[in-house]
Amino acid sequence: MSSSSILDLKTVRLSESGDAVIILDQTQLPLREVYIELRTKEDLFDAIRKLKVRGAPAIGVAAAYGIYVCSRSLQVSTYADFLFEFRKLRSYLESSRPTAVNLSAALERMEQTVTASKDKPIPDLLEALHIESEAIRSEDAAACRKIGENALTLLRPGMGLLTHCNAGHLAVSEYGTALAPIYLGEERGYHFKVFADETRPLLQGARLTSYELHRAGVDVTLICDDMASYVMQQGWIHAVLVGCDRVAANGDTANKIGTSSVAILAHYYHVPFYVLGPESSIDVHCPNGKNIPIEQRDPSEVTDKWYQHPMASKGVKAINPAFDVTPHELITAIITEKGIHYQNQNKVEI
Amino acid sequence: MSSSSILDLKTVRLSESGDAVIILDQTQLPLREVYIELRTKEDLFDAIRKLKVRGAPAIGVAAAYGIYVCSRSLQVSTYADFLFEFRKLRSYLESSRPTAVNLSAALERMEQTVTASKDKPIPDLLEALHIESEAIRSEDAAACRKIGENALTLLRPGMGLLTHCNAGHLAVSEYGTALAPIYLGEERGYHFKVFADETRPLLQGARLTSYELHRAGVDVTLICDDMASYVMQQGWIHAVLVGCDRVAANGDTANKIGTSSVAILAHYYHVPFYVLGPESSIDVHCPNGKNIPIEQRDPSEVTDKWYQHPMASKGVKAINPAFDVTPHELITAIITEKGIHYQNQNKVEI
Repeated sequence: MSSSSILDLKTVRLSESGDAVIILDQTQLPLREVYIELRTKEDLFDAIRKLKVRGAPAIGVAAAYGIYVCSRSLQVSTYADFLFEFRKLRSYLESSRPTAVNLSAALERMEQTVTASKDKPIPDLLEALHIESEAIRSEDAAACRKIGENALTLLRPGMGLLTHCNAGHLAVSEYGTALAPIYLGEERGYHFKVFADETRPLLQGARLTSYELHRAGVDVTLICDDMASYVMQQGWIHAVLVGCDRVAANGDTANKIGTSSVAILAHYYHVPFYVLGPESSIDVHCPNGKNIPIEQRDPSEVTDKWYQHPMASKGVKAINPAFDVTPHELITAIITEKGIHYQNQNKVEI
Repeated sequence: MSSSSILDLKTVRLSESGDAVIILDQTQLPLREVYIELRTKEDLFDAIRKLKVRGAPAIGVAAAYGIYVCSRSLQVSTYADFLFEFRKLRSYLESSRPTAVNLSAALERMEQTVTASKDKPIPDLLEALHIESEAIRSEDAAACRKIGENALTLLRPGMGLLTHCNAGHLAVSEYGTALAPIYLGEERGYHFKVFADETRPLLQGARLTSYELHRAGVDVTLICDDMASYVMQQGWIHAVLVGCDRVAANGDTANKIGTSSVAILAHYYHVPFYVLGPESSIDVHCPNGKNIPIEQRDPSEVTDKWYQHPMASKGVKAINPAFDVTPHELITAIITEKGIHYQNQNKVEI
C-alpha cells in the first residue's frame, strides 16, 4: 500500500444535499474502503451501535449531522411540535452507546441551537442546526490538530510509541487525538516507531490503527494486547498515547477496554502515559470514574470471531465490557486542545 | 456440553504396538476432538512446531515417546551407530521449539538411558527407552496431582481465579499444572469461579482452557487478554494461577506471552500470583530470565486469523514473541510437586 494523505479518508461527512450522513463503514476495514449513507434515525442508531462509525469525537459529529438530517424530515408545523419530536430523536440516538460523553454533548449543543432559535421559522431553525453541526465538525478538526501540536512538544524524534484501540483519523474528523501528534510528527520527519495493540475483541488496533498509519507511511508494528509488557520490557516504548471516551472531573478516564492495563504496565516500566482528547471529553459533572457508565456488549463478540467462526466451545460464558476506567494516578498527563493537564499540578498552558 | 471426566481426553499416549505416538490434535479444538498418529521424526517435529501437541510437560512426554518410536526404526547394528543416530534424532527434535526446558530435559533423560544401556543388545536398549518414556509420562501425571494438592492449600472455596494460556489437562499427561488445583477443588466442592484469558495470538485460553474446564463442569468465563485489569478492578480475582515453560535459578519465569503483563496487574491490584509447574521446569543452569531463549514465531499468526482471514492490511508489520519473562519479584510463589517456593524465603514443604 503506497503512502497517501490520510485526509483522503473522510470518516464522517454530510452529503451535498444535506439529506444523508456519509460515513466510511469501519466494520469493512481493512479489507474494503466502503462509504455508506445514513438517512433515517434507525440507520444512525445501527451505525453507531454496530461501530460502523466509532471513536468518541466521530460519534459526536455523526450524531450532530444525523439529528440535523432527521429533523429535516419531521412532519411538524409549530416550534413546540418540533422541539417535542427533536427531543424524541435525541433520546433515541443518545441511547445507541452510553460511555462516550461526546455523543450526548453534541446532541445537547444541537438541542441548545433549537431552543435558541425558538422564534425562527422552521426552515431557519433547520439552517441553524445545519450550521451548528458543521461547527461541531470543524471545531473537532481544529481541536485535533491543536491536541497534536500540544502533544508533540512532549515527544522527540525516533521515539517508540504505543497506542491502544483507535484514536486516530478514523475516530474523529481529521488526524485523530492520540494519533494526531504521530501524523504531525511524520510530516516533520520525526520518524516515530509506533506499536499498535490489536485491541480485542473488535480489533480496532489491528483493523483501523495499523491500517491508517501504514496507509499514511508511518512505521507501525502490530502486536497482540498481551505483548504490550514484552515491548516495554525490551525498552522499545518511550511513551503511551491513548484517546478517551470520558474523563471524570478528578481525571479518571474511561477508554477502550484494556487501557487501564496498558496504564498499569507503563507505570511499572516508568513509561509516561498520556491521554489525548478534546476538552469536550471532560465531563465536569462526573466526579470520578465510578460514575462513568461502562457499556457491556454482547459476549459473542468475545467467543465468536470477526468472521463468525467460533473460537470457544458452545456454551462457554464470556463477558464483554467495552471500556474500563484508568485511575487518574496512573495518567502522566491529559492533553487537550487547550494545553497539558498534569496530575496534581496546575494546568500548563502551551 | 455435559460434564464428563477430563481424563477421557488423552493428550499424549503411545500406541499399543509402540510404533506411534497418538496425540489429541489441539489445533482442531474446540471444534473437533481428533486424535492423530505420529510415526516419523518429521511428524513429531511438525506436531510440536505447529502446536498440535503443546504445553511444556506434554511436549516432553511426546518427545520421549517420539524418540523411542523413531529409535525402533533405526537401521543400525552396533551401539556406537545407535548412539550416533539417536543423537541426530535428539538434536532434530530439540530444535522444534526452544523455550520450554521440558523438551530438552526429557530428551536428555532418554539419552542417559541409552548411555546407561551401552552394554545391552539393541532390543534390550529399546525396551529400556520404552520403560523410561513411560516413566516420564507417569511421573508427570503424579507430579501434576501433587502440584494441585500443594496449590489447593493456598486456595479457599468460592475464590475467583484467573489463568492465562493453557496449563491444563491438555498441556500435560493428566489434570494440568495451573489447572490441577481447580480440578481437584471441583471434585471437593470448592466451586471456584475461573476466568480464562483468551491468550492471543493462538487463543489457547479460548480454544483449550475454557474448553476443557467447561467440559469438566467448572464455572469458567472467557475474557479477552485486555480485560484482565477490568476483572481484577472489580474485585473478582483472588489469585492468579499460571504454568511455566522454564524457571531460571533466580525464579524468573518464562511462560506464554502476556504472563508478565498479568503478573504486573496482579501486583498492582494486590492479588497473589502463583506459578505452577514440575520441578523439571526449573533450569538450575540458567541464572536468570535474560538467559532464557524466547521463541519468535511467524508474525502472520498475529496479522491473520485462526481461519486465515486477514485482520490487518497487507504489508503491516507485526512481531510474535511466543513467551515473555516474568521477573521473580512479581511472583508470590512457585508451586511444584515438592512444595511451595516463596520468593526470598526458604522453601515451605507441604
